[in-house]
Amino acid sequence: MSHPGCVVPLMTQNIYDTQTFFDQYSQLDRSIEGLGGAPEWPALRALLPDPRGLRIVDLGCGFGWFCRWAAEQGAAHVRGLDISEKMLARAAATNAHATITYIRADLERLDLPEASFDIVYTSLALHYVEDLAGLVKNVHRAMVAGGHLVFSIEHPIYMASMHPRWLVDRDGGKSWPVDHYLVEGQRTTDWLAKGVVKQHRTIGTTLNLLIQTGFTIAHVEEWCPTDEQIAANPELAEERERPMFLLIAARR
Amino acid sequence: MSHPGCVVPLMTQNIYDTQTFFDQYSQLDRSIEGLGGAPEWPALRALLPDPRGLRIVDLGCGFGWFCRWAAEQGAAHVRGLDISEKMLARAAATNAHATITYIRADLERLDLPEASFDIVYTSLALHYVEDLAGLVKNVHRAMVAGGHLVFSIEHPIYMASMHPRWLVDRDGGKSWPVDHYLVEGQRTTDWLAKGVVKQHRTIGTTLNLLIQTGFTIAHVEEWCPTDEQIAANPELAEERERPMFLLIAARR
Repeated sequence: MSHPGCVVPLMTQNIYDTQTFFDQYSQLDRSIEGLGGAPEWPALRALLPDPRGLRIVDLGCGFGWFCRWAAEQGAAHVRGLDISEKMLARAAATNAHATITYIRADLERLDLPEASFDIVYTSLALHYVEDLAGLVKNVHRAMVAGGHLVFSIEHPIYMASMHPRWLVDRDGGKSWPVDHYLVEGQRTTDWLAKGVVKQHRTIGTTLNLLIQTGFTIAHVEEWCPTDEQIAANPELAEERERPMFLLIAARR
Repeated sequence: MSHPGCVVPLMTQNIYDTQTFFDQYSQLDRSIEGLGGAPEWPALRALLPDPRGLRIVDLGCGFGWFCRWAAEQGAAHVRGLDISEKMLARAAATNAHATITYIRADLERLDLPEASFDIVYTSLALHYVEDLAGLVKNVHRAMVAGGHLVFSIEHPIYMASMHPRWLVDRDGGKSWPVDHYLVEGQRTTDWLAKGVVKQHRTIGTTLNLLIQTGFTIAHVEEWCPTDEQIAANPELAEERERPMFLLIAARR
């Protein structure tokens, strides 16, 4: 595992350390309000075991909101890993806790210690990873038997198109285009900054990778806002048209 | 289990016994050529164990092409179940074999004998079933420990939209609209006949139902034509834009 202050050779695009991106990202609800600002959090939380006494690592911890939640729930210790120095600095400043360690690490070359974690959590980070097979293998090795892998990624329906955007037909009906779904690989979009690079994979590819590595699939959820969430925030209604997030729980 | 000649009260739409639908369906490659006319068959076959000596049931067997294949591979016995009298008659006439029994049955009220099958196979039938939970429970009960459930359904990306069709943009790019993806339930389309009723479910719903019933997910595949298939039949290229079929293998 890399440690704070180590120089990590970056293989991945580190868009979060771009000033424009960082500033924009800092303005999102999920950055300001933390987990309460992420509408998929209640569904993701439902997939997690009680963190009390457990050893947890968060891959791509960002501002550390999840790490803080897990620590406050009584986790034995929490490791928050991220490639972005700016995000780790903010995490250390705003979401510090005695049982949390924030560490700079590149998910493309992760080297977690063997059989050391009860929960591996990662939120909206794995779709940036090119060598997902290598990462999943390392994660499997780092977990104890019976351990929980719980993660979210951008849904492949959301990511597949070469030109993703809402289409509106004559009577106002909205739809989301799917094209190139079976053509896996790089997708470049403008989100908060120009040229953000993501890796599109089918749901099948992600699930089979987990299965082949030795995980058992426990739950697969294409996130849908609840009626209460839509009543509180009508903009969320469009999230029922096409799934934006894919949530997966697996057991080692 | 229902037997030939029994009167089965129909809960499901039995569109296959409508003359127009039946005549049109009979003209499809997969009806005339059998498994060789179904481009997803090689991928589905790869998920099956060697049928030799195994007890097999095919839910929604249609013209019986799979039953015949399994019988010719040396299955101990094969049960081909379908709701359509016309299809069963054709199956008995063209795909008979000493080890096959064709039986009329409604998948909405299936009652398979306990611990009787090593393989449960079903191709493009489960998306017509309303009470999928009931069916999966009955299938689980009917299988031996370690048994294989292998099936295909129309992919939810293909089914979700209230107005499914190719969209072509100004530069000729094709895309498929996704809307109402998270709104599960009935979809009525015109395919070979007017008003064919299907049941839309997310991938998550289908997988979680299997998991909750006691199955272990073994493989999930969003079918993609191979380069060789596209070279032989260029029309298949569009199947890479959005998945038409979802193939799933699970173990009891």
